[in-house]
Amino acid sequence: MIIVLKPHTSEENISRVENQIKKKGLDTHIVRGTEMTIIGCIGDTTLIDPRLFEVDSCVDKVMHVQEPYKLANRAFHPEDSVIDVSGVKIGGGHMGLIAGPCSVETFDQVLSIAKDAKASGANLLRGGAFKPRTSPYSFQGLGLKGLEILCAVKEEVGLPIVTELMSTEYLDIFNEKVDLIQIGARNMQNFDLLKQLGQVERPILLKRGLNATYEEWVMSAEYIMASGNENVILCERGIRTFETFTRNTLDLQSIPVLRKKTHLPVVIDPSHAGGKWWLVEPMAKAAVAAGADGLMIEVHNDPENALCDGAQSLKPAKYDNLLKQVKQIAQVVGKVIS
Amino acid sequence: MIIVLKPHTSEENISRVENQIKKKGLDTHIVRGTEMTIIGCIGDTTLIDPRLFEVDSCVDKVMHVQEPYKLANRAFHPEDSVIDVSGVKIGGGHMGLIAGPCSVETFDQVLSIAKDAKASGANLLRGGAFKPRTSPYSFQGLGLKGLEILCAVKEEVGLPIVTELMSTEYLDIFNEKVDLIQIGARNMQNFDLLKQLGQVERPILLKRGLNATYEEWVMSAEYIMASGNENVILCERGIRTFETFTRNTLDLQSIPVLRKKTHLPVVIDPSHAGGKWWLVEPMAKAAVAAGADGLMIEVHNDPENALCDGAQSLKPAKYDNLLKQVKQIAQVVGKVIS
Amino acid sequence: MIIVLKPHTSEENISRVENQIKKKGLDTHIVRGTEMTIIGCIGDTTLIDPRLFEVDSCVDKVMHVQEPYKLANRAFHPEDSVIDVSGVKIGGGHMGLIAGPCSVETFDQVLSIAKDAKASGANLLRGGAFKPRTSPYSFQGLGLKGLEILCAVKEEVGLPIVTELMSTEYLDIFNEKVDLIQIGARNMQNFDLLKQLGQVERPILLKRGLNATYEEWVMSAEYIMASGNENVILCERGIRTFETFTRNTLDLQSIPVLRKKTHLPVVIDPSHAGGKWWLVEPMAKAAVAAGADGLMIEVHNDPENALCDGAQSLKPAKYDNLLKQVKQIAQVVGKVIS
Amino acid sequence: MIIVLKPHTSEENISRVENQIKKKGLDTHIVRGTEMTIIGCIGDTTLIDPRLFEVDSCVDKVMHVQEPYKLANRAFHPEDSVIDVSGVKIGGGHMGLIAGPCSVETFDQVLSIAKDAKASGANLLRGGAFKPRTSPYSFQGLGLKGLEILCAVKEEVGLPIVTELMSTEYLDIFNEKVDLIQIGARNMQNFDLLKQLGQVERPILLKRGLNATYEEWVMSAEYIMASGNENVILCERGIRTFETFTRNTLDLQSIPVLRKKTHLPVVIDPSHAGGKWWLVEPMAKAAVAAGADGLMIEVHNDPENALCDGAQSLKPAKYDNLLKQVKQIAQVVGKVIS
Repeated sequence: MIIVLKPHTSEENISRVENQIKKKGLDTHIVRGTEMTIIGCIGDTTLIDPRLFEVDSCVDKVMHVQEPYKLANRAFHPEDSVIDVSGVKIGGGHMGLIAGPCSVETFDQVLSIAKDAKASGANLLRGGAFKPRTSPYSFQGLGLKGLEILCAVKEEVGLPIVTELMSTEYLDIFNEKVDLIQIGARNMQNFDLLKQLGQVERPILLKRGLNATYEEWVMSAEYIMASGNENVILCERGIRTFETFTRNTLDLQSIPVLRKKTHLPVVIDPSHAGGKWWLVEPMAKAAVAAGADGLMIEVHNDPENALCDGAQSLKPAKYDNLLKQVKQIAQVVGKVIS
Repeated sequence: MIIVLKPHTSEENISRVENQIKKKGLDTHIVRGTEMTIIGCIGDTTLIDPRLFEVDSCVDKVMHVQEPYKLANRAFHPEDSVIDVSGVKIGGGHMGLIAGPCSVETFDQVLSIAKDAKASGANLLRGGAFKPRTSPYSFQGLGLKGLEILCAVKEEVGLPIVTELMSTEYLDIFNEKVDLIQIGARNMQNFDLLKQLGQVERPILLKRGLNATYEEWVMSAEYIMASGNENVILCERGIRTFETFTRNTLDLQSIPVLRKKTHLPVVIDPSHAGGKWWLVEPMAKAAVAAGADGLMIEVHNDPENALCDGAQSLKPAKYDNLLKQVKQIAQVVGKVIS
Repeated sequence: MIIVLKPHTSEENISRVENQIKKKGLDTHIVRGTEMTIIGCIGDTTLIDPRLFEVDSCVDKVMHVQEPYKLANRAFHPEDSVIDVSGVKIGGGHMGLIAGPCSVETFDQVLSIAKDAKASGANLLRGGAFKPRTSPYSFQGLGLKGLEILCAVKEEVGLPIVTELMSTEYLDIFNEKVDLIQIGARNMQNFDLLKQLGQVERPILLKRGLNATYEEWVMSAEYIMASGNENVILCERGIRTFETFTRNTLDLQSIPVLRKKTHLPVVIDPSHAGGKWWLVEPMAKAAVAAGADGLMIEVHNDPENALCDGAQSLKPAKYDNLLKQVKQIAQVVGKVIS
Repeated sequence: MIIVLKPHTSEENISRVENQIKKKGLDTHIVRGTEMTIIGCIGDTTLIDPRLFEVDSCVDKVMHVQEPYKLANRAFHPEDSVIDVSGVKIGGGHMGLIAGPCSVETFDQVLSIAKDAKASGANLLRGGAFKPRTSPYSFQGLGLKGLEILCAVKEEVGLPIVTELMSTEYLDIFNEKVDLIQIGARNMQNFDLLKQLGQVERPILLKRGLNATYEEWVMSAEYIMASGNENVILCERGIRTFETFTRNTLDLQSIPVLRKKTHLPVVIDPSHAGGKWWLVEPMAKAAVAAGADGLMIEVHNDPENALCDGAQSLKPAKYDNLLKQVKQIAQVVGKVIS
């Protein structure tokens, strides 16, 4: 941490600020420039809130040098984390191919989609049971009944399941039944929920908030990890920008950035990002080319009658065709699809 | 709702889409243009998800004409809502002046600030007991002990209290003790929490999410209202933009927009928006000039040693000075400060 | 400037980087921390591009401490600049009240609006002769004929004129005839044009680009100033954000920020920001309350038949009413309207 | 175009608005709903400014249905445009591989880079002679001398050249000497410059503005095309968002969107978007996988001593390695690299 003092700060005040820093357990080193003085803070600053110093009337600004996260930081854990989702590996060259309908509607619907997706190469089944909807008047998902359907299909088809948890109320049942627990973009900073996920044994798929910086996103992973659950997969699903033709802007630079800064796997959801089915195919291929550790794609056998987000779902035949190209690109960039 | 069909859609397909619309209980009206055909949907479209139609292969786009909210809509409730917070009125010309520390630290601290703020003209006391923090390693608030301190100060000073609820776990105790329950920006789309607020008798202060559009924000108010609690106050606290010198960009256009679209009061929080104490004073005055129904301002007797966000807190003397000018501006624009 | 080295950089490489810095005429000061080493650069870094060092394989990041502008910097020019626009002062407590139609249409139109605006208290007349339009098929302004109309009205009514320059081709004629030369948002980083403005004797009204940070905006002013023309007024007209209900988001925090960082006057244009006439009145009052040095407002006698941007224009009677309140608020915050 | 009237608009006013529409040469069709009336406008609305109607006191909003561009619109030109740049084809399956230094520094530098790039497979040479720089104190490029160097290298190596035009002053010399004229992001809405490009015979590489929507970007291409030059290539180079770790956010969804909406080729510049060399490789591969018609990449033989943007330049060996993978991915998605 570097503290920049205002021009013409007196020696007395420099000493005062220095003492405040030392009280936090840090060492200091003073650099006197021609126009300003800066204080370098030496020691572990991860746990110190820089805003504590900003308020001082002699301080101009405080600049963070170290990343504020530890457990998720590649600097302290140089090798890729490989997350095991009930036998399916994600990370370290292994790709997670998650497919399924936006919302669980009926057993037959999910079964049909799951069989097709598995035949195409998907290794995880997704489906929304509890749905976060902007409007209180929209379909909110089948809830626990939807979860039961997913479990029944898993029994029959053999794909581990991924579904979104919206409330701590269902924590135990998700821990028991769901192979990979998804936390949605709107709950990425629901800190109470994040803390509780530390108690869970299942791995977590943490979606990026619509306006979350990389650092904030990793800090939310750090919340889960610091609470006791280190099995976190990051999932980019588009950020909000000024462009409104697409629902969100898919930020594929997140892949190399997060793979450099953290050791956690990065999965891309091209369906939610664009909001249009014809964007899914090119963006899925791009994600793999950029080094993604997995893809989360909405597949629906009858998108025109889907209860939710049909517009962004691929039909099984299109998904099958996509995975053929995905596998070729994965090979070019050195990924394994098992 | 207007459905724009793709060029050269056949008569057969036009009929097919028409029938789908009618199945939802709407009437249709077809407009055949030179280059495209559109279908006007007549009836109450508030409860219909436009994305259901977007997926049809003959549909080019779906445009919403009606606002998707009812209870919060000024069109159906032309008069300003006046919310009564334990005797303090907000809305309809009455201003809520909320002041207090970012975090509750000690009884003496809160008592001292509350007395000063009340003497300056504040009519509500704020203070954070549960704090949403980006880092798991930052001070998370005193929790229930902080709430007790607020209640004790309320007892002594006589100002109703405002504090943030982060989890449904404390719903009952907040309903019992807190005069105005704040929902923070990061929980604006925690839909599970919003639904539970319908069960609460206390009014709700709903902060705008950092990336929430006006419509999404009002839809979150609609969630609370549709669940049974119509006493909602909206609070703008800055949105996230590309500008990073200020913590957030304070969007004061939200005041006239929301006052036109809804009947709910709009309160401005200039402390969190800018993140710097010297921005609070000009922005507070601007908010009142633009017609805000209230101000939420951080006041701290010793900001340099505050446990949180001291950098954006005013000292009591500055707050006192600010309120003098605020009152004069309020008079110019026809507001009552009681 | 502070250069943060990567962890475990060898002493040899530290010396190498140090030498590169010294070659630029700066002194260095090394701070060795537990996890990283930083080099403080001492001397005038305004003229040095920090990206030159970022590329070094031992450098983790480069942080700028000093602002990269000099002539516009309040640190080197503590008093408010007062710009004289053909006798009308703007800055240092003096307010510029600029009013007029978006586009110049006819002599009678401009004359009528100018007379009304002057009677209400406006002290400068605006009107677009050359119009920047997103579409090549939209009305592009009357061009030189429009400028002649403005000059003829100025002759008759006595208000100095403000109009937009889009091309260096007309530099001489603008310098001769236009009292305050406006540079539009889309040309804020047309560096060729900015450099030429250094040759002009007239003051410049520099609008903020839709996505310009405060620093980039001030750097564009610095371009003009460094080229020889120090009479620059900054004009905020809204920035582009994710919110699309309003045309742009008016950033009133720009007023206190720029007044702290620079000595240049700051004028607010609430008409373009919101794009709706009913937003102009509250935002104009807010701007004055926040300390703006002026207002630029579109006034049209017949907005429903305006050739451009009628939707955001006030009728003269509304403008008159607005200025009455503006004057009262100006008095509260200590501004002079002459 | 669809005009939504305010609730309870009288029949008289409906007729009045209808007549205004008819005066613009359009037919009307009225849809009377339960809560509002809408008017469908039939005819060619491309050339009509919807804001003209928004100002009417009976109009609630105006919604555009047709795209406001014609010449660039794929609807009227279904086949891919293939642009011929002095013999190198871009579009319609042909990829343009543009490489070279950010700034032209010396003949030897450019020659060495050009030879290496050509050997790796590049078919066009880039190099900045005139540089748009945020600061007036940064290196502004060699100007005409830089252009001469590019021409000399072209003579020797045989690659057509691409370089940025910043001012109409050099239009003739660029038309004579430059094979592909680049218009930078900051000049994307310099409408005066765009109009002049209609006079030029050379194809234009039009970069997306940092905050330009797809529609605005295409409208700027339309300016050039409507002025007489239909050879326009679009170049995405990142947009400005809230994320600041990367210089800009590369929007690869622009590829499928623009290829659907327009017939113009789309080239991606991953160097400027991320601002860091280690982002170039994954993003270049992603762009090709998503269907880009070309790549524009900064290559420098000595990035640590580059005069500009060395941090985002690849060394020739890395570029060579990248192109090997690019070619494999291009084959998977059906592109030709000649």
